[in-house]
Amino acid sequence: MQPRLAPLAPSDALLLFERTRARTDRLAAPLSPEDMMLQSMEDASPAKWHLAHTTWFFEEFILRPRLPTYVSPDDRFAFLFNSYYVQAGPRHARDKRGLVSRPGGEAVRAYRTHVEDALADLMSASRDDADEIAGLVELGCHHEMQHQELLVTDLLHGLSHNPLLPVYREPEPLPVTSEVPLTWTKHDEGLVEIGHDGGGFAYDCEGPRHRTYLTPYEIADRPVTNREWIAFMEDGGYGDARHWLMEGHAVALREGWAHPLYWWQQDDTWWTYTLRGPQPVALDAPVVHVSYYEAEAYARWADARLPTEAEHEIAFETDPIQGNFLDDGPLRPLPGRAIWGDVWEWTASPFTPYPGFRAPEGALGEYNGKFMVNQMVLRGGSCATPRDQMRTSYRTFFYPHQRWQMMGLRLARDL
Amino acid sequence: MQPRLAPLAPSDALLLFERTRARTDRLAAPLSPEDMMLQSMEDASPAKWHLAHTTWFFEEFILRPRLPTYVSPDDRFAFLFNSYYVQAGPRHARDKRGLVSRPGGEAVRAYRTHVEDALADLMSASRDDADEIAGLVELGCHHEMQHQELLVTDLLHGLSHNPLLPVYREPEPLPVTSEVPLTWTKHDEGLVEIGHDGGGFAYDCEGPRHRTYLTPYEIADRPVTNREWIAFMEDGGYGDARHWLMEGHAVALREGWAHPLYWWQQDDTWWTYTLRGPQPVALDAPVVHVSYYEAEAYARWADARLPTEAEHEIAFETDPIQGNFLDDGPLRPLPGRAIWGDVWEWTASPFTPYPGFRAPEGALGEYNGKFMVNQMVLRGGSCATPRDQMRTSYRTFFYPHQRWQMMGLRLARDL
Amino acid sequence: MQPRLAPLAPSDALLLFERTRARTDRLAAPLSPEDMMLQSMEDASPAKWHLAHTTWFFEEFILRPRLPTYVSPDDRFAFLFNSYYVQAGPRHARDKRGLVSRPGGEAVRAYRTHVEDALADLMSASRDDADEIAGLVELGCHHEMQHQELLVTDLLHGLSHNPLLPVYREPEPLPVTSEVPLTWTKHDEGLVEIGHDGGGFAYDCEGPRHRTYLTPYEIADRPVTNREWIAFMEDGGYGDARHWLMEGHAVALREGWAHPLYWWQQDDTWWTYTLRGPQPVALDAPVVHVSYYEAEAYARWADARLPTEAEHEIAFETDPIQGNFLDDGPLRPLPGRAIWGDVWEWTASPFTPYPGFRAPEGALGEYNGKFMVNQMVLRGGSCATPRDQMRTSYRTFFYPHQRWQMMGLRLARDL
Amino acid sequence: MQPRLAPLAPSDALLLFERTRARTDRLAAPLSPEDMMLQSMEDASPAKWHLAHTTWFFEEFILRPRLPTYVSPDDRFAFLFNSYYVQAGPRHARDKRGLVSRPGGEAVRAYRTHVEDALADLMSASRDDADEIAGLVELGCHHEMQHQELLVTDLLHGLSHNPLLPVYREPEPLPVTSEVPLTWTKHDEGLVEIGHDGGGFAYDCEGPRHRTYLTPYEIADRPVTNREWIAFMEDGGYGDARHWLMEGHAVALREGWAHPLYWWQQDDTWWTYTLRGPQPVALDAPVVHVSYYEAEAYARWADARLPTEAEHEIAFETDPIQGNFLDDGPLRPLPGRAIWGDVWEWTASPFTPYPGFRAPEGALGEYNGKFMVNQMVLRGGSCATPRDQMRTSYRTFFYPHQRWQMMGLRLARDL
Repeated sequence: MQPRLAPLAPSDALLLFERTRARTDRLAAPLSPEDMMLQSMEDASPAKWHLAHTTWFFEEFILRPRLPTYVSPDDRFAFLFNSYYVQAGPRHARDKRGLVSRPGGEAVRAYRTHVEDALADLMSASRDDADEIAGLVELGCHHEMQHQELLVTDLLHGLSHNPLLPVYREPEPLPVTSEVPLTWTKHDEGLVEIGHDGGGFAYDCEGPRHRTYLTPYEIADRPVTNREWIAFMEDGGYGDARHWLMEGHAVALREGWAHPLYWWQQDDTWWTYTLRGPQPVALDAPVVHVSYYEAEAYARWADARLPTEAEHEIAFETDPIQGNFLDDGPLRPLPGRAIWGDVWEWTASPFTPYPGFRAPEGALGEYNGKFMVNQMVLRGGSCATPRDQMRTSYRTFFYPHQRWQMMGLRLARDL
Repeated sequence: MQPRLAPLAPSDALLLFERTRARTDRLAAPLSPEDMMLQSMEDASPAKWHLAHTTWFFEEFILRPRLPTYVSPDDRFAFLFNSYYVQAGPRHARDKRGLVSRPGGEAVRAYRTHVEDALADLMSASRDDADEIAGLVELGCHHEMQHQELLVTDLLHGLSHNPLLPVYREPEPLPVTSEVPLTWTKHDEGLVEIGHDGGGFAYDCEGPRHRTYLTPYEIADRPVTNREWIAFMEDGGYGDARHWLMEGHAVALREGWAHPLYWWQQDDTWWTYTLRGPQPVALDAPVVHVSYYEAEAYARWADARLPTEAEHEIAFETDPIQGNFLDDGPLRPLPGRAIWGDVWEWTASPFTPYPGFRAPEGALGEYNGKFMVNQMVLRGGSCATPRDQMRTSYRTFFYPHQRWQMMGLRLARDL
Repeated sequence: MQPRLAPLAPSDALLLFERTRARTDRLAAPLSPEDMMLQSMEDASPAKWHLAHTTWFFEEFILRPRLPTYVSPDDRFAFLFNSYYVQAGPRHARDKRGLVSRPGGEAVRAYRTHVEDALADLMSASRDDADEIAGLVELGCHHEMQHQELLVTDLLHGLSHNPLLPVYREPEPLPVTSEVPLTWTKHDEGLVEIGHDGGGFAYDCEGPRHRTYLTPYEIADRPVTNREWIAFMEDGGYGDARHWLMEGHAVALREGWAHPLYWWQQDDTWWTYTLRGPQPVALDAPVVHVSYYEAEAYARWADARLPTEAEHEIAFETDPIQGNFLDDGPLRPLPGRAIWGDVWEWTASPFTPYPGFRAPEGALGEYNGKFMVNQMVLRGGSCATPRDQMRTSYRTFFYPHQRWQMMGLRLARDL
Repeated sequence: MQPRLAPLAPSDALLLFERTRARTDRLAAPLSPEDMMLQSMEDASPAKWHLAHTTWFFEEFILRPRLPTYVSPDDRFAFLFNSYYVQAGPRHARDKRGLVSRPGGEAVRAYRTHVEDALADLMSASRDDADEIAGLVELGCHHEMQHQELLVTDLLHGLSHNPLLPVYREPEPLPVTSEVPLTWTKHDEGLVEIGHDGGGFAYDCEGPRHRTYLTPYEIADRPVTNREWIAFMEDGGYGDARHWLMEGHAVALREGWAHPLYWWQQDDTWWTYTLRGPQPVALDAPVVHVSYYEAEAYARWADARLPTEAEHEIAFETDPIQGNFLDDGPLRPLPGRAIWGDVWEWTASPFTPYPGFRAPEGALGEYNGKFMVNQMVLRGGSCATPRDQMRTSYRTFFYPHQRWQMMGLRLARDL
């Protein structure tokens, strides 16, 4: 993680920990033991694995090194629930996570409680390393928040393979809306600073804060909507190679892409599968579940481009005005209100290190640095992103062909 | 199915039905909801699917056509739980069966009960088609018995991917045994008759009974043992292409085969994973979990060959002397006692129609005929085969690279 | 090879050798150095490789062991031009044969002459092993004849990938024909003998001659024609899973098969690519370039079946009445005259050993035996089969999905 | 292409054209017709295709639109020899280029002459559009120079599959050298300008020239040598996941990478295959044929990093001091003299558009822009790069797993 200007107080860390763990439990509550097993592709993991892996993280990086009396309920969990930390030892094959029927859901919940109790004890004790522990707990909580969003999107992907189209949370009526005009904000040329400034938590890859030079541009005040995306589709956008990166068009042809993921057409209406079951596509909501390749092609079709991550960061120095929240709201963007925060926005920037970046030593240094190739940065946050996690310097990253996250786009233009 | 000389009495059919259904339930009883989801390869299916599919079979082929008042708990189950019967309508993708978390285990058990109740009612009624129904119930029971064996072998395969090596049934000590000598029985040249003779149940592909001409041969009185197989391994059998079919050796190299499936070596002892957990390989038990390619190479190495299915059928006109049974015994062959029935035995015969074979009309005609290419016949039966299913005319068939069934071999030689 | 009743006289062997080698040269004469490089799939080999491999065969199995003074132009050719004889040493990767630009066409032709000269000298010498040598030369010539047919069919496949549709031999007008009626010949039940009887050359797998029992059947007097095949297509035969083996239909769907290989439709007429360039499909000629899967589905659609190889062998105990010959005729079956010999005919028989078959010791024993799995026997011969090679006991074999050989079918029916 | 400050004089364009075409012919001269067919992977193309495609470029973009009387020797060449220009019409499958035996080498050479003659006539004529034509000819020549380097590297890859390790150009003795010390040049923080300035030819993606901000760094004065690379290998660099991008290590494991492409070890000495045949690895020459993944891992192992493309461009504002040239020198980097230009140097920069970049309209706009995803920029030039093509603003780009180009690396460090 990035150095913080002021360390998190241990008592605040404990509150964050309790709030975060409770949210994971709440998200998993409606799931049957069978639902918790679903792994529909290598990129996605079962909900049960998310519950266990986020727990292992606290065990591996805090309890084991700092509490010599700590006893794990099963030492073999370290093998099962390590994701990719080479320096934390060997680990189970990623694409086989859906084949781990045991430990079952109950055993994993017991594992969670076991670690939570031990950690609460550790944090209540008077220790010289209390600040360090608080910092690690904060990291673990942010790590778990990332997995909360993955849990939700992986679950959506998993359930979407069920021909019965299951409902995770009861549907609610969508508000009637009308088309939202597209307006632009201009930005002058000049040297700017981007990257996290040390106030509050951030991941290592959000820093160092540094200067970069921007040429004049303007950026849209809202993401692209479903209504606009359908216009692209109806104009033959998917089939016209001129709009596309060559590799993107090859993927689109091979995969038969003709609309965003989870969409289908029925009697002239576009429908989409959501965690609230099938719903008609809300025309004035941000489009979601499109790949970088599609986003980039759309932008060229619209005679615009995607913003770079620096342009995006400079443009949104304020808090998100998000239409809804993971904790109690609907699980797809709502129409008509999004400023930023409803949908992750693909940028034109590959995920590379900022000048001066060095990954920390040890296993925790494997957090972000080793992914810095072939992935594109998304900025913003989505209706499945915990509010605690949303900040303008946040860089998430995915492969350009991936669509199962809450991914959309916003346009920019040179001036 | 083959025509029977005498139809099964409806009351016997009901008893068979109850016995068969109860055995499935008993096999599934130790499984958690998560265990029931496991699908570790396209060839294998989740236990939950087996429970539902065998139920759908009765619903689709008996209740729907013959009981107009029958109402299914969910009409969409026909799509989810049809395996491959094209004439019974469209069906779910086979390799996605592990992604159906809903209906859950409880719902599937309720589906079983629902169909069982309706079928018991139907069979208790006085009807003109009672004999026909009894015949279909008999077929459905044999179909379910096939799935019992698959349930067990698919489960073994699924659990074997769990690094914790879970235990399905508690282990018991293995008897101490010594090497069993290999003896041979000679058979003269001549015209023989093979195929089912109509006494009792048989599948369509077991007939018509017909003449075939055999040249003189001798056949071993017991299957090849683990002790013998290890000698083949230690003699470099896996690496010496001269023993192998070219295609077989290519598969062995590509897959890195150097021993039967589920084996590993630890401190000079060979171990194997079983449904009773890890166990040392029992040297004098029949070898199991070897492919046709391996079996065929072993036979050539041993200066022998595999028997044809006619040679096998003629040699074993008696009941199996099986070391153990699915219902209450261990789930791997026991050492020292096997005559036939402990392990499926690969034959030299590709699965082709007998002279005069014609698949029945309609969806039930898809039972065996459409698989008659590229597969090899196995004869006998295994410790996971229900005793009701064992008869000398039974032909099971698998692809030559498959190993996850209880597959072994017996030698034969030209005279 | 099979034991012959009377050995081939050395002088006859020399004549056969000269005739065979000259035919290969004649076939290759129209090819440019670039044409000789084409390898369009792993199953096929470049013409240059065929020229070299058939030469290596004489070098490896006759000259090296029997002529101590023999010097090869390049010892490394043994690595490059061994096909699959494990006991003759390591060999080049089959799918990379098209990447061997050197030695070039001229060098390979020089290699041919070098070996031919040495062999002519050896055969002219007075030696104790003259009869053995004559027998090996005979085998080498038959081996080369097999490769002549492959050279032609591999070349057709290779050139078919060229959008310019090149012409290997000038086209000639097709005779106008009319529909040929389909008649049947009946055969009684009974014990028959099949397999080669030792009069003349045969491969090892054609024996031992042995008894087999046939049930009554009838067999068509000519192969299925293009006209009949088009009726199958127009009746939706390719799309109706009920006619197909399950595996066959999966292949047909995956590959998008809707007609024989090399066909396309243009203005309501079916065309086919041949070595004489594009030609309209001759309606009354035997259909060619269909897989076993397609042939088997056609037969079921026609309410018939494919004959077994024993049925086929018994039915054709006479010489072929072939419409045309490799040496000077057209390179596709001609309409209206075929009895047998115009097109290879898929049988219902998997390629398995005859009773009592044992592969010979040594590398030459790898000729046929190690292919005895997953392949189907074809009987007859085609317009690309040298006349010297055609006999009723001949068994060729290919995988059920393969279509690039001159493969057709003939119907049979149970009586 | 980028706008030039001063257009190229038509007479200079003609000289460039003649020089460029002659170089291609000289490179192809030692090749047999068979060599010219080699396509060893989809990324590579046959030499014959390069000869034809570079000719088609002049025909398609100059002769057809500007010379109404022009007649192509074969209009179908447009289909065969278009590479990827969607707006220039449909085209042949890239991975099937090695299957086009006709037109043969002679016909392609005749095509070259035909187009050269027509273009020379066009350029000699007095025309209003002479300057435009000169600009297009210049672009076509630079395009052909790119293909000269590809021809050489594709040929090396193709010939490397031949077990005889053919020699394209006679070997010459390697100079004896000693270790070259590694020195560094420091660069201050500050705003810089990069991108082509319009003086002379450049591709579209080299502009617009623009400002960017650099943090302080130092950069090595020479590329990494084979001696240093061997130290990395001997230190277990390939096997230690800590040095690697996660994706890079997965590729290395899957492909079994343990050294640069074309290397093997023999009696403690490392050898490499080159177009001059097998040669011992020259310890003090730049390492070549390493992927981005390997280069990036090496840099981390060496406690350094790769430079960004801006850092590289600023550091080398001078002409290359290249050890050797395509036209008459050896075809691998020479030891001991390289400053820049002997080997392409992987940078840390993904290939993305410069601020303000817009691809030109029409088919020529497909030149670079549509490749701007998932590829990394290399800077410099290699011993296979024509001298006319070397400039500090030049951006070439390849996928991070590719190794068959003359790819090496240079280190940089933060200050």
